[in-house]
Amino acid sequence: MTAKDCLALLREVKDVAFATVDEHGHPQVRIIDVMIVEDEKLYFCTERGKDFYHQLMAEKYTAVTGMNKEFQMVRLSGPIRKLQDQKKWVDRIFEENPSMNDVYPGDSRYISEAFCIEDGWLEFFDLGRTPIYREQFTIGAEKKQEKGFLITDTCIGCGICKEVCPQQCIREGMPFEIQAEHCLHCGLCTEQCPAGAIKRKEG
Amino acid sequence: MTAKDCLALLREVKDVAFATVDEHGHPQVRIIDVMIVEDEKLYFCTERGKDFYHQLMAEKYTAVTGMNKEFQMVRLSGPIRKLQDQKKWVDRIFEENPSMNDVYPGDSRYISEAFCIEDGWLEFFDLGRTPIYREQFTIGAEKKQEKGFLITDTCIGCGICKEVCPQQCIREGMPFEIQAEHCLHCGLCTEQCPAGAIKRKEG
Repeated sequence: MTAKDCLALLREVKDVAFATVDEHGHPQVRIIDVMIVEDEKLYFCTERGKDFYHQLMAEKYTAVTGMNKEFQMVRLSGPIRKLQDQKKWVDRIFEENPSMNDVYPGDSRYISEAFCIEDGWLEFFDLGRTPIYREQFTIGAEKKQEKGFLITDTCIGCGICKEVCPQQCIREGMPFEIQAEHCLHCGLCTEQCPAGAIKRKEG
Repeated sequence: MTAKDCLALLREVKDVAFATVDEHGHPQVRIIDVMIVEDEKLYFCTERGKDFYHQLMAEKYTAVTGMNKEFQMVRLSGPIRKLQDQKKWVDRIFEENPSMNDVYPGDSRYISEAFCIEDGWLEFFDLGRTPIYREQFTIGAEKKQEKGFLITDTCIGCGICKEVCPQQCIREGMPFEIQAEHCLHCGLCTEQCPAGAIKRKEG
């Protein structure tokens, strides 16, 4: 997998969930189409009357997720940018996504505005494999922010973490080692470690 | 449609998006299973090591959305409640969703904690019909919070709103009237009304 593959999966799923934060600081989420994926950027649009539009303009951030039929999921989160030359982008979006014309026929399309996510954190998560498989990426200027858990040097080698791990993804050694690509991030190893040696990564 | 039908649709879709707000005030979203729907309540679980768990415990709010193959979508948002008697609920969730045992075999299931949404705002949105169809509901103690637009008495009857509406859902009259169940909330009528007579509903 690459960041490019993750974005392609979101475009293929097309109807994905976009989350925002509302004026009360609460989460909101709705299904929106991924309109274009190009050059490691994701393009979408929404209409100026919608809560989604107002939340995007106020908070400038969104988080996106979609899953295909094989239970492969992608998550993307980052700042949004309203595009320059709106007419060009709206026209291109409607050209490449012709069913939009059924919803917004004729000139009513220009109530839509086009946005782009070009900096962001991405995660691929495959629940269709055993053990599960995950991989993290970034696009654009986003700094690498590795999530998950790490077994530190204070590991006493007792092996309890390896025993309790639901995905059996911990390797013996000093210290023991979590195979990050198979880790659920469930936290069971951290809770059970008698030496307090397993830490949450701080990004 | 009823609130009950909306929750049943989310359970049927099962893999839906749950949004939260992170420690930076930014939106986060991931695909999670709807585990049980019963008595107008939606039950789900997550594991104590996950960011999702920490965000739920810190903010106490979530927003959920899912779409079926017929392009019918449901949105639900509201406060979350961590359930009493966790063992009972986790056991019941694993019993009714046996594939959970593949991910969390044996006693590792107890790293999961069960939550419930019992008060919330719900919306059904059907993009598979022409014109589109939507309906809003509440469950539990949530106060009715009608979203959308309203044509007020300052309407001058010019008919521009009716002309520009992409879904042709505005009826002639004094004032003209938006058929809320077919409205996209795109805001084009508001922008075009020469009398400033079309207002956003404030819930």
